[in-house]
Amino acid sequence: MSTQTVKKVALAYSGGLDTSVILQWLRETYGCEVVTFTADLGQGEELEPARAKATAMGIQEIYIDDLKEEFVRDFVFPMFRANTIYEGEYLLGTSIARPLIAKRLIEIVNETGCDAICHGATGKGNDQVRFELGAYALKPDIKIIAPWREWELSSRETLLAYAEKHNIPIEMKRGKGSPYSMDANLLHISYEGGILEDPWAEPEEDMWRWSVSPEAAPDQATYVVLGYEQGDIVSIDGERLTPAQVLAQLNQLGGANGIGRLDIVENRYVGMKSRGAYETPGGTIMLKAHRAIESLTLDREVAHLKDELMPRYASLIYNGYWWSPERLMLQQMIDASQAKVNGEVRVKLYKGNVSVVGRQSASDSLFDMNIATFEDDKGAYNQKDAEGFIKLNALRMRIAAKKGAKFA
Amino acid sequence: MSTQTVKKVALAYSGGLDTSVILQWLRETYGCEVVTFTADLGQGEELEPARAKATAMGIQEIYIDDLKEEFVRDFVFPMFRANTIYEGEYLLGTSIARPLIAKRLIEIVNETGCDAICHGATGKGNDQVRFELGAYALKPDIKIIAPWREWELSSRETLLAYAEKHNIPIEMKRGKGSPYSMDANLLHISYEGGILEDPWAEPEEDMWRWSVSPEAAPDQATYVVLGYEQGDIVSIDGERLTPAQVLAQLNQLGGANGIGRLDIVENRYVGMKSRGAYETPGGTIMLKAHRAIESLTLDREVAHLKDELMPRYASLIYNGYWWSPERLMLQQMIDASQAKVNGEVRVKLYKGNVSVVGRQSASDSLFDMNIATFEDDKGAYNQKDAEGFIKLNALRMRIAAKKGAKFA
Amino acid sequence: MSTQTVKKVALAYSGGLDTSVILQWLRETYGCEVVTFTADLGQGEELEPARAKATAMGIQEIYIDDLKEEFVRDFVFPMFRANTIYEGEYLLGTSIARPLIAKRLIEIVNETGCDAICHGATGKGNDQVRFELGAYALKPDIKIIAPWREWELSSRETLLAYAEKHNIPIEMKRGKGSPYSMDANLLHISYEGGILEDPWAEPEEDMWRWSVSPEAAPDQATYVVLGYEQGDIVSIDGERLTPAQVLAQLNQLGGANGIGRLDIVENRYVGMKSRGAYETPGGTIMLKAHRAIESLTLDREVAHLKDELMPRYASLIYNGYWWSPERLMLQQMIDASQAKVNGEVRVKLYKGNVSVVGRQSASDSLFDMNIATFEDDKGAYNQKDAEGFIKLNALRMRIAAKKGAKFA
Amino acid sequence: MSTQTVKKVALAYSGGLDTSVILQWLRETYGCEVVTFTADLGQGEELEPARAKATAMGIQEIYIDDLKEEFVRDFVFPMFRANTIYEGEYLLGTSIARPLIAKRLIEIVNETGCDAICHGATGKGNDQVRFELGAYALKPDIKIIAPWREWELSSRETLLAYAEKHNIPIEMKRGKGSPYSMDANLLHISYEGGILEDPWAEPEEDMWRWSVSPEAAPDQATYVVLGYEQGDIVSIDGERLTPAQVLAQLNQLGGANGIGRLDIVENRYVGMKSRGAYETPGGTIMLKAHRAIESLTLDREVAHLKDELMPRYASLIYNGYWWSPERLMLQQMIDASQAKVNGEVRVKLYKGNVSVVGRQSASDSLFDMNIATFEDDKGAYNQKDAEGFIKLNALRMRIAAKKGAKFA
Repeated sequence: MSTQTVKKVALAYSGGLDTSVILQWLRETYGCEVVTFTADLGQGEELEPARAKATAMGIQEIYIDDLKEEFVRDFVFPMFRANTIYEGEYLLGTSIARPLIAKRLIEIVNETGCDAICHGATGKGNDQVRFELGAYALKPDIKIIAPWREWELSSRETLLAYAEKHNIPIEMKRGKGSPYSMDANLLHISYEGGILEDPWAEPEEDMWRWSVSPEAAPDQATYVVLGYEQGDIVSIDGERLTPAQVLAQLNQLGGANGIGRLDIVENRYVGMKSRGAYETPGGTIMLKAHRAIESLTLDREVAHLKDELMPRYASLIYNGYWWSPERLMLQQMIDASQAKVNGEVRVKLYKGNVSVVGRQSASDSLFDMNIATFEDDKGAYNQKDAEGFIKLNALRMRIAAKKGAKFA
Repeated sequence: MSTQTVKKVALAYSGGLDTSVILQWLRETYGCEVVTFTADLGQGEELEPARAKATAMGIQEIYIDDLKEEFVRDFVFPMFRANTIYEGEYLLGTSIARPLIAKRLIEIVNETGCDAICHGATGKGNDQVRFELGAYALKPDIKIIAPWREWELSSRETLLAYAEKHNIPIEMKRGKGSPYSMDANLLHISYEGGILEDPWAEPEEDMWRWSVSPEAAPDQATYVVLGYEQGDIVSIDGERLTPAQVLAQLNQLGGANGIGRLDIVENRYVGMKSRGAYETPGGTIMLKAHRAIESLTLDREVAHLKDELMPRYASLIYNGYWWSPERLMLQQMIDASQAKVNGEVRVKLYKGNVSVVGRQSASDSLFDMNIATFEDDKGAYNQKDAEGFIKLNALRMRIAAKKGAKFA
Repeated sequence: MSTQTVKKVALAYSGGLDTSVILQWLRETYGCEVVTFTADLGQGEELEPARAKATAMGIQEIYIDDLKEEFVRDFVFPMFRANTIYEGEYLLGTSIARPLIAKRLIEIVNETGCDAICHGATGKGNDQVRFELGAYALKPDIKIIAPWREWELSSRETLLAYAEKHNIPIEMKRGKGSPYSMDANLLHISYEGGILEDPWAEPEEDMWRWSVSPEAAPDQATYVVLGYEQGDIVSIDGERLTPAQVLAQLNQLGGANGIGRLDIVENRYVGMKSRGAYETPGGTIMLKAHRAIESLTLDREVAHLKDELMPRYASLIYNGYWWSPERLMLQQMIDASQAKVNGEVRVKLYKGNVSVVGRQSASDSLFDMNIATFEDDKGAYNQKDAEGFIKLNALRMRIAAKKGAKFA
Repeated sequence: MSTQTVKKVALAYSGGLDTSVILQWLRETYGCEVVTFTADLGQGEELEPARAKATAMGIQEIYIDDLKEEFVRDFVFPMFRANTIYEGEYLLGTSIARPLIAKRLIEIVNETGCDAICHGATGKGNDQVRFELGAYALKPDIKIIAPWREWELSSRETLLAYAEKHNIPIEMKRGKGSPYSMDANLLHISYEGGILEDPWAEPEEDMWRWSVSPEAAPDQATYVVLGYEQGDIVSIDGERLTPAQVLAQLNQLGGANGIGRLDIVENRYVGMKSRGAYETPGGTIMLKAHRAIESLTLDREVAHLKDELMPRYASLIYNGYWWSPERLMLQQMIDASQAKVNGEVRVKLYKGNVSVVGRQSASDSLFDMNIATFEDDKGAYNQKDAEGFIKLNALRMRIAAKKGAKFA
């Protein structure tokens, strides 16, 4: 695990200013070849400009991959099977994309004979951890270059000067003129920095990009029926869709109805609190609806065990441990729990609200109207059983109370 | 713990048909005296009619207690310190009231020399468990009478006939002509039964009683600032309020803005799934805002530990174990965690949405703008530290990968 | 789930006094046919007398099954993969046998057309729960008869009188003249009752049946090498053995060396504490050795997650939830974790002590001498990485301390 | 948190070769004053030689503190209240001493105006983390110097050469000629390195220093009665003792009876596995006995919750988070649970075995012989209650099975 010489580097390349500067800085600093990798994760940007720019900068090996289906199928959906939510609020939109990028980078390393990877994440954030833990797990001797932790180009001004000096085309890529640091993929768009650094300040309306405000959303509710198979959505209003299609359509529906905005202070893995704003229109619908289909089809104790393990599973993803044995172990349990999570959920979308208004499962409902009813159940349930149930559950406390324990 | 003769019974008495029939049935069945207990928990009903009715039925010892402040201070607020939510959705409005009623019933038993208590909860539900576990924990040899598990009056028709025969005034109390079985207190109102027994059916708009629909809520958002001390709300918009006043005002604000409706299938402790609808306007605001003030003032690991224990804590309350040693033990930890949860949260209420738009804590914020900033932090944080942090966190996976482990 | 008429009952039959009386009582009480089922779980008793006795009592359908291999392979071994131990001490020898008996009883019900099962466990213990939860899970409408909860034969004297009256051969089966209530299978033998009901009293030496005392054990230690595949022992000292052979041999080795005696107070599921003594010679060796092979081959976080879930898994087994969806879900995770738990453990057995003195895994050891060494590691590990690791792990506490938090 | 100049350093000083070299190296490297701190934690070594040596090296401020009582009272005892054990085996003898040293170092820093601390732990181990996390939590801007991560003196030879050059008295202090790296305090002595680096090799008998081998222990068992108050041992055989006296006496008793040897592979926080051997004679007795007194006096659910949280609590201590808010929060819960853990435990010590042979609590036993008995309980427990208890606990599985779920 010692320091190696670097001959060829696979760079996670967005085509923006930062990673273009990094591209040049890598060649200058290490005298190495660079392979660029740009992923389409549904961030909603043209990727061909990235290709053009890389070509213009003399790159020979350029990878531009559409990973949208893999992203949703193998990362987003498995995560939602666990009703995953970090710190009670955050749907992990950025966190869940990083392990896929790490995996693809390492594949490219293996295909092209690189000896190092490079990314543009800063030394203060979570993304560096996510990229690097993934890379190390998948290729333990990989050399990782994180320019933001190394170089002197620590301000925007020095970056711009460096770009000018090296004829790197500048187009204010980062945030496209926005004061915010942003990240987007099919699951969400995130905002950090700018006035968000004051946690008392309300985000300005024009910051949000993926959703209308609840105020601006239609006055008429939209009803949608989501079809589930083994915990994943496979259809919307009866139309069978691929995973990425599902999420894209839910984003459209959610965004149009003002759904999925979030404004939080969160705890980064590297130890500080940070303020972030997120838009996750489709994911917000998915979380709510998944809980609803589970409420009908999942055993109580299985559901409760999932709930108790969820915060840890969420932290694993947030902290970058997607490619770890403990995440894999938890995933096996989570996936196993979803075998009977089949059926339909009907949701109402209205001005920021996602309301579940119906759930059914022809094959796997555990809801038994005959037993639950307040009406005559024709002997399906013997109410007298409850007496013994309560008495034995109370026994340890009765014994303790008789021995003098005070519970109030 | 053997069966005793019953001479005098403390009855949880609402004044409605069911508990009036029970009152008479107790006297007839056991030849006993009855003490009635009616609690004002903020359910929004006149209690004097209950007194009149009990008097008319010849009851000598009538307890009518305003427990609203105790309810919110000693039950609702402690529960919200844990961000408690059952099965991802339910705010435990009914569950949290039962232990207080059990406690007060036992106090009345001790004051009046009763040898038994009686309640009107059915043998199919959670409430019987909550009443009885509480009573047993606080008075282990108490005799408990649960008529619904014993008697033959199992249908509404037989109840009505019994009432008529015994000249018990009938006023369709249960649900006041509503097809739903309802329960209310200052935290929420609940609905079960009727068309809700079909989990695919959407509740009708006229079922809801405490909130306007999001559609009918004002087109203008309401902003409110909530002041926190040790995890509890002590002021609204700068005005210092008692716990019950806080909740009452938040109910008013929430209800007016279409906030707090919930429609779920839940898992009862006695083993079946049931469909319920709830309105918890103030509680919905409180949960969201409490997370926000904690996000600023609570240590990450403390917050995560709370999150991991919360589902179990919620189940304890749901299942009726408020007066148990394990709930008390958890509460000590939860309360200890709140010492520094002080500050203000600003929320926006709009057509069903509660959005946190600001949080601050002059005394206890752990948010450090200097460290979190993407701008120059003047050396507050050394980005190079991240490399070692990641490398050692990756070490076990690197070793495993070198030995052949496959993580993807 | 209503009460049915009983025509034919499958009885868990030991051949002893209690279950012989039950056999007769069933016929008398229900006018039903009885099918007897006697399992060889390695309890070390001849089963043919049970057959003779059942025949003598006129039983037509007699099941006597050797379930030793199934017991160890499908119940004991899976349980030990989790390092399962109840309340820090108990190896669950009785608990783990019950679900197998329940399963086989239900198979017999299905084969012979019974409409009920019957067992001889009392209404105070855990075994009734284990039998019945298993039976209900595997055949939800099964009728269960638990005579000890129903009949009037509540004392030994009335039992004997009943036996005499009905010409049931009496041979003091229960405990064979022992003052203790005992249960045995290939994993353990248990003792309850008698002087054990006083938790201050030390068990008498002649109570123990499966092991010599440490004092009486050989003065020379015995060394054994256990071979593991996927978490299970497959060989002893290089000799490949079946699961039941493994356990039988370890019992022999352990018992001869005074290993596996336990004397505890435990918490029963039905709510009271009870005192029990156990001999688990082979199991005690297995627990210790399994931890050792895992210590070499299991990832740290996987091992820790297993440790955190283990108490709950143990409670599930103790409480009778082997045939529950949550146990199955946990098992999937546990089994998945064992894929690389391969290698050898060398243990020293000496007068009650099991000491691990060596562990190795040619294929799957994660122990890396080059990294762990205090000698020169030739750059395998960069000590400087530790500084950043510590600094970032300390960051949240440093920020808090600067804001005034006091940790000491 | 930037790098400061270092004027005066508080050094954790053992008087041995390593820390003597460090002392000189600090002065040479930083041109700073050095304050030495040597703690008596019961390691069983004379400390006056350390004073003499420090004086001889020209140190003006020399701290030599007897911390034995504080160590056991405020660190060891609180930890044992949780039945703490790391990875199923390790009693955390080294881990629990480090936070006390960190705390005292910081106190000395505050008293003497140091601007840095220094310790002699390597960059590969856990101790550096424990020292430094503690120091940062208690004094967030403290400068920490860890020579082993910085200097070039990475081998024993260079150390010796440096010592010779600077006239530092050499006496082969480290391990006193032993091939093992050792650490000792009143709770344990540990061994690492040497042949232990091969996990298949059995430690040689002459490595062990604190205990006789089981083989060499007396042929006669020793019986001891331990008196508990609130979870801590306050007397042995009726004689009231201070915490340090308790542990010292138990060490003597345990060591003489061959108790407390351990040989494991463990997972370090910095990411690798390492092999260690430990002698914890008194601690081994304490763990076993504490579980026994809890078995009698602790509520089942409280005990189980403690068991589930214990592995995490153990990891916190192992990883160095004693002075963290989450450890403090857990401790509050643990301590609260011990209010009624009062009584006596009788243990038998014999050739490596600790057997609990009796436990009693006049004031707080929850063991109720009348209820637990297999004999006639005179109605204390109604066996019929078990039927309802089981039926409702089975209900969710019965419903699922009827809907087609397969549990076997």
